[in-house]
Amino acid sequence: MPIPWTMYQTEARWADQFVLVNTEKSVPGDASSDPGTVPLEEAVRIVRSIAHKTGTETIPTDEADGRTLSESIYALADLPGFERATMDGFAIISSDTSDALTSPCILTLTGSVTKGLSTVSAISHGQAVSIQTGGKLPDGADTIVQAENCLVQGDTITIKHPVSPGVNITRRDEDFRKGEPVYPAGWILRPQDIAVLASIGKIRVKVRKKPVIGIISTGRELVPSESIPKSGEVREVNSYLVTAFCKRQGAIPVRYGIIRDDAEELTKLIEQASQECDAIIVSGGSSRDEHDITAKVIHKLGKVYTEGISFAPEKRTTIGQIDSVLVIGLPGHPSATFMVLTLVVIHLLQAMKGSPNQQVYRKFVKLTDNLHASRDSDRYIRVTITDDQATPVFGKAGLIHMLSQSDGIVKIPAGGRGFSVGDRVEVMIW
Amino acid sequence: MPIPWTMYQTEARWADQFVLVNTEKSVPGDASSDPGTVPLEEAVRIVRSIAHKTGTETIPTDEADGRTLSESIYALADLPGFERATMDGFAIISSDTSDALTSPCILTLTGSVTKGLSTVSAISHGQAVSIQTGGKLPDGADTIVQAENCLVQGDTITIKHPVSPGVNITRRDEDFRKGEPVYPAGWILRPQDIAVLASIGKIRVKVRKKPVIGIISTGRELVPSESIPKSGEVREVNSYLVTAFCKRQGAIPVRYGIIRDDAEELTKLIEQASQECDAIIVSGGSSRDEHDITAKVIHKLGKVYTEGISFAPEKRTTIGQIDSVLVIGLPGHPSATFMVLTLVVIHLLQAMKGSPNQQVYRKFVKLTDNLHASRDSDRYIRVTITDDQATPVFGKAGLIHMLSQSDGIVKIPAGGRGFSVGDRVEVMIW
Repeated sequence: MPIPWTMYQTEARWADQFVLVNTEKSVPGDASSDPGTVPLEEAVRIVRSIAHKTGTETIPTDEADGRTLSESIYALADLPGFERATMDGFAIISSDTSDALTSPCILTLTGSVTKGLSTVSAISHGQAVSIQTGGKLPDGADTIVQAENCLVQGDTITIKHPVSPGVNITRRDEDFRKGEPVYPAGWILRPQDIAVLASIGKIRVKVRKKPVIGIISTGRELVPSESIPKSGEVREVNSYLVTAFCKRQGAIPVRYGIIRDDAEELTKLIEQASQECDAIIVSGGSSRDEHDITAKVIHKLGKVYTEGISFAPEKRTTIGQIDSVLVIGLPGHPSATFMVLTLVVIHLLQAMKGSPNQQVYRKFVKLTDNLHASRDSDRYIRVTITDDQATPVFGKAGLIHMLSQSDGIVKIPAGGRGFSVGDRVEVMIW
Repeated sequence: MPIPWTMYQTEARWADQFVLVNTEKSVPGDASSDPGTVPLEEAVRIVRSIAHKTGTETIPTDEADGRTLSESIYALADLPGFERATMDGFAIISSDTSDALTSPCILTLTGSVTKGLSTVSAISHGQAVSIQTGGKLPDGADTIVQAENCLVQGDTITIKHPVSPGVNITRRDEDFRKGEPVYPAGWILRPQDIAVLASIGKIRVKVRKKPVIGIISTGRELVPSESIPKSGEVREVNSYLVTAFCKRQGAIPVRYGIIRDDAEELTKLIEQASQECDAIIVSGGSSRDEHDITAKVIHKLGKVYTEGISFAPEKRTTIGQIDSVLVIGLPGHPSATFMVLTLVVIHLLQAMKGSPNQQVYRKFVKLTDNLHASRDSDRYIRVTITDDQATPVFGKAGLIHMLSQSDGIVKIPAGGRGFSVGDRVEVMIW
């Protein structure tokens, strides 16, 4: 019998939130007021309150791993649907054995249930049927006695001890009772859930559509990754990063290409993407101006909720909205982009899929270095983990290799004493 | 500069093995000797020593997330490839400022580097160029002085303190030096790695092919999931479970359908699958006979290494080999099948992909119940986790709903004292 839903995934029990956020729907602050810089928790709250859930579609169950159910699922029939043997033995009527201690019970073998085939469908008093594990009990039988507790001679079985009813049997509704809830809407399907759905004959399921995410890169110095950059140019990296991240999170990325510093062109492209996508991610170039252009374009087409998130070392992240479409402007450096993807954009993707929480893996490990707190804003420091130890990874802004050479991040709360060598700290694994 | 490879993923640093196994290649025991029951660790060793790595293929980098590199990757050129400003300011020649304390250094502004566009390519002594973050340093310049440390009047800049060379600059090879290793063969790509590959212009990569896994279900009582079972029949579930599991682990599942208890038909199908797949998974019906048939067929076509794994509660798992193709016969109950998938088959899939370790997530939580040890074999008990507490899930063999209602498993070593209420135990999360 299932444990009530509330104990399950809908509360995201084991995959706690790294960022503790009140995700209750509430209207974000009026965008006409100061769109300066907000704390990370507020940025996540804004994203979760604006993000709309995607529509629904019906797909084959065996393609639904990782998808979010948009219907609650109930058992259409009892499962297994018949009384089933859980041991090899003889199916009998228990009351035949009531007096077995004083007067041995003698039964006649009238048939067998072997490998799914029954030679008889029912038994009466005085009869027994041999049965294999998994076999269907003949009508009338209410218990199974194992061979080692009988004396078998030809077609005659002698039992010298009373047998209780219901022994070595699975009840016909012991797995699921007809009409019983199996999964609630909002459940994110795992391979084992696909199997459960197959067992109740649910071969198509209604799930949330994958969110479609438009991806735009801006930056005068950017060339496509397949080009050989001339001196002063760099390969565009962020659209690759955002694309792979979206795919892994179960979204559909759509690349809109590179805009080389033209506000008008960017306006057109964002307008087009806002018609075609559920959300838009614009990554800025390395200069501050380009980021400002993104914010201005969003402001012109819709609302800007914030132009920055107050966590060191990277603040420049614009959150805005065009009609119902959320637009996030990311900082230009790939390593900073990745941090915002992991801390903010993941909430957008999960909210659209109807998942209440950011599911992250955390690990407590020892620090190999001191980490000082900042007075005004939380710091998020990349670390590598080796042998249960976390080593901070520092590097100049904009270095790519920090991406491959860190395993996760440590949060250092603002205004605190920071952490010292040997402290056990919580690492959020990428 | 990259930290040496050995510190990285190839040692699977944070994703430790749940089952500690010596995965060194060694020849499994002679199959002609007793193929009885082996401990889990031995089963994993056998699987890892037989499993062959899949071949290689070259695919677009942006489709390579989760794939295993089968080539080592080196930087083809320096990255970023030019000296780059990390701050807005003025590019100058540092030696011009050597005597600035006694005699202020006066420079002439000769151009600008804005948004990737340079108006001058080089400077000489006595000259300066205004530059934005990310901009390419003009030839000759070796440092950047920030505006707040200068006096700017028209085209004249006055500096009153010496400036060291190399300030606010990224060296041309600071991210990667030409020829430097970026990733070793065997690395499993993550979204951030896709970005790193894009940054060095590596738009196609050589990776291990996805292993192709043949899936066969046996059982007289089984009907396809889309059927309405007659009394005594049950829907086939394991092929759904194995399919979803394989997909999630980056393998390609191929379903060969249901064999209803016919050794000859099973022989033909296994022979066919052994020609077409990298490995075969046969799941048994609920009765013991069917499992035995699988073992016999494998023995006829190839070798059987073991017919059981000595961990409670489910022992029946056959491991064999036909030519170079590994064949695993799983127990029939879906919940037992899932346990063997998680503890054994995952090693098969990862070994074929060239990954040295089983990467699992673990969590330490408090037990809400006593768990006794078995004398002879390790026990693996399913648990649900709520609020940092693990509650054991028990149920009759063959119940499906245990699949949806557990979050992971706890190992209870054989012959130990077991665990008591309140003990902190390690849970391997599914």
